[in-house]
Amino acid sequence: MALIVQKYGGTSVGSPDRIKNVAKRVAKFHAQGHQVVVVVSAMSGETNRLLALAKDLASSPDPRELDMVVSTGEQVTIGLLAMALQAIGVPAKSYTGGQVKILTDDAYTKARILNIDDAALRRDLSDGKVVIVAGFQGVDADGNITTLGRGGSDTTGVALAAALCADECQIYTDVDGVYTTDPRIVPEARKLDVITFEEMLEMASLGSKVLQIRSVEFAGKYKVKLRVLSSFEENQGEGTLITVEENKSMEQPIISGIAFNRDEAKITVQGAPDQPGIAYQILGPVAEANIDVDMIIQNSGHDGLTDFSFTVARADLDKTVGVLDRVKAVVNAQAIETDKSLCKVSIIGVGMRSHPGVAAKMFRALSEEGININMISTSEIKISVVIEEKYLELAVRVLHEVFELDSAN
Amino acid sequence: MALIVQKYGGTSVGSPDRIKNVAKRVAKFHAQGHQVVVVVSAMSGETNRLLALAKDLASSPDPRELDMVVSTGEQVTIGLLAMALQAIGVPAKSYTGGQVKILTDDAYTKARILNIDDAALRRDLSDGKVVIVAGFQGVDADGNITTLGRGGSDTTGVALAAALCADECQIYTDVDGVYTTDPRIVPEARKLDVITFEEMLEMASLGSKVLQIRSVEFAGKYKVKLRVLSSFEENQGEGTLITVEENKSMEQPIISGIAFNRDEAKITVQGAPDQPGIAYQILGPVAEANIDVDMIIQNSGHDGLTDFSFTVARADLDKTVGVLDRVKAVVNAQAIETDKSLCKVSIIGVGMRSHPGVAAKMFRALSEEGININMISTSEIKISVVIEEKYLELAVRVLHEVFELDSAN
Repeated sequence: MALIVQKYGGTSVGSPDRIKNVAKRVAKFHAQGHQVVVVVSAMSGETNRLLALAKDLASSPDPRELDMVVSTGEQVTIGLLAMALQAIGVPAKSYTGGQVKILTDDAYTKARILNIDDAALRRDLSDGKVVIVAGFQGVDADGNITTLGRGGSDTTGVALAAALCADECQIYTDVDGVYTTDPRIVPEARKLDVITFEEMLEMASLGSKVLQIRSVEFAGKYKVKLRVLSSFEENQGEGTLITVEENKSMEQPIISGIAFNRDEAKITVQGAPDQPGIAYQILGPVAEANIDVDMIIQNSGHDGLTDFSFTVARADLDKTVGVLDRVKAVVNAQAIETDKSLCKVSIIGVGMRSHPGVAAKMFRALSEEGININMISTSEIKISVVIEEKYLELAVRVLHEVFELDSAN
Repeated sequence: MALIVQKYGGTSVGSPDRIKNVAKRVAKFHAQGHQVVVVVSAMSGETNRLLALAKDLASSPDPRELDMVVSTGEQVTIGLLAMALQAIGVPAKSYTGGQVKILTDDAYTKARILNIDDAALRRDLSDGKVVIVAGFQGVDADGNITTLGRGGSDTTGVALAAALCADECQIYTDVDGVYTTDPRIVPEARKLDVITFEEMLEMASLGSKVLQIRSVEFAGKYKVKLRVLSSFEENQGEGTLITVEENKSMEQPIISGIAFNRDEAKITVQGAPDQPGIAYQILGPVAEANIDVDMIIQNSGHDGLTDFSFTVARADLDKTVGVLDRVKAVVNAQAIETDKSLCKVSIIGVGMRSHPGVAAKMFRALSEEGININMISTSEIKISVVIEEKYLELAVRVLHEVFELDSAN
């Protein structure tokens, strides 16, 4: 008998029939004698509907009132799921974030969880009830409703698992686990049985959309056993387990997965004076404009000048150029060049720590296909390259094969 | 400077544009220096949408979970109205029932208000803020969300007005006040400037849909000055004030209004033994089946037998006959007769206390039009007759004229 936290996203509870399916799945675990806490998102489309209503009434709605409105989406789902469970004979009780209570700071629309009171939930679990908790929301010290921002329901699930010392936190989604790469690009992509938190974090930050980065960080910090599973398959497997420990029982593969991101735009500030502080002079104003900068490269200078390149999300490109047009004069640069036909491909694996030559192997594979590398960025467990977007599929397939990730292996 | 509670129903907040109109109206009062507390219902259609979702998941949903789901409708409206007010420069803050807090018993879907904590609201009002409270909902002693049942938002408005000792509780609706009768039937119907609680109670219970009976009772009990107004008219008048005191400043009209109800079905148990306990033997099982009985008449017997008649809502007729088929054998009655082509017309007025002969005047007027009276029921301030439905409009018009309610007077 285990204590399991299960989280179901908006698509999994997107209609009454889907909610009934979730109820059946929860009932199965309950029947096996497990204690089950279920965290649910708003029905798919509902949060956007509420946001649109808010936008109709105010161009920039007050964050407190926005949270008041948006948090109702999850409140509806918890009530409906409780009804669905009761309808098939499973005792269940729903809780809003405030009722639990999930205490957060008062940073509306992006609140952080400070504490979770698990007393009521434990009492219900002991009574044999399934406990259903609204994801994405909490309450501040003054009783105001707060929301946790994007991916907040995953975070609620992990935080509850940590507070209750759950045996496992299961994240149900529309894929049956974490894959070596996107199967739509590489049909031979293989589902991973196990992946480490570090790798999962890199996967998430590099474009894999299976889990929100924040919930992975949280799970890693509190050592919550996290598992990704499909909510749509009848006879589901074990999904992918995300663990703290590296898998020591078998030969460690060099890399675990390949992530990619099409949404890259590169900006180069050409002919800036090669002097201390130039990076800050360029990137300071960009950061102040709330633009996220990804990769940064400063080429070695000549004639006392340097080329300074960085990437941003494509949607931020025009805004960034606007900022740099002002900076250009200040730093006395010659020109601003932009390129938005780029993408980023990354290989990830804790195995590369103990395997030298991984980067060389990657670069050779790309070179053999005639793929030019624009930018390179490395960390202890990942290597990212920026290449022309038209080569994305080819690069991913080649690397998948070279690093022996195909199902056949 | 006054403290005013305003309540807006679902139609008044049925779209973003209508919410903006409500915001403008509230802003006007706020600009005049009044302290304003606004109570809102769910946007029209929203509660039914949520109920339909619940019905999809359980044929008889758990009341606690139903309240969890349905209470979100009002929560959305309060947030949206707060945004709309802020967008036009009026400081505003929304509160759920639980945040206020409006303490109720735990009778989910039909909870009763036990206590209202006005501390937070008073603080906000002193700070110059408009306070917006979700109607229809509260919270029990254990923090569970409850709803107050039909007309619950009116009740929330009146209860808040009582708790805050407000100068006035304004109920905004789609009519501009209480009329002597339905203007669709009598074009000469006149808006009443003032009506007493007793009269309003009778109007509500006899078919006038302007105010929920429960909120009128509540307002009468706590002596809250209640005013019915239109939320759709640009230059609104004073609406209708509902007061405790009878209007002594002018000649009291004999009757204040005419109410009617088409939804009447009459059942007669014929030839039952004329003996003590027969009424209970017949109506006991009907009450146990949760059927509301309205008028009851027992005709004087002959040959030791009696005819026993009563009215129910038409929707309950078949169910009632089902119950009586069993009762018939027990009480040894001869036959059950039904009639659903009937309606009820009532004249209401505290003036009839001091004016004898009102009933005779009513009966003569109907008789002169050849309208036969089926049943009669009287109280201190109202007389109701059951007549054939085809005479409804004629009867209402004739009585409106005979009792001099027309606008011309």
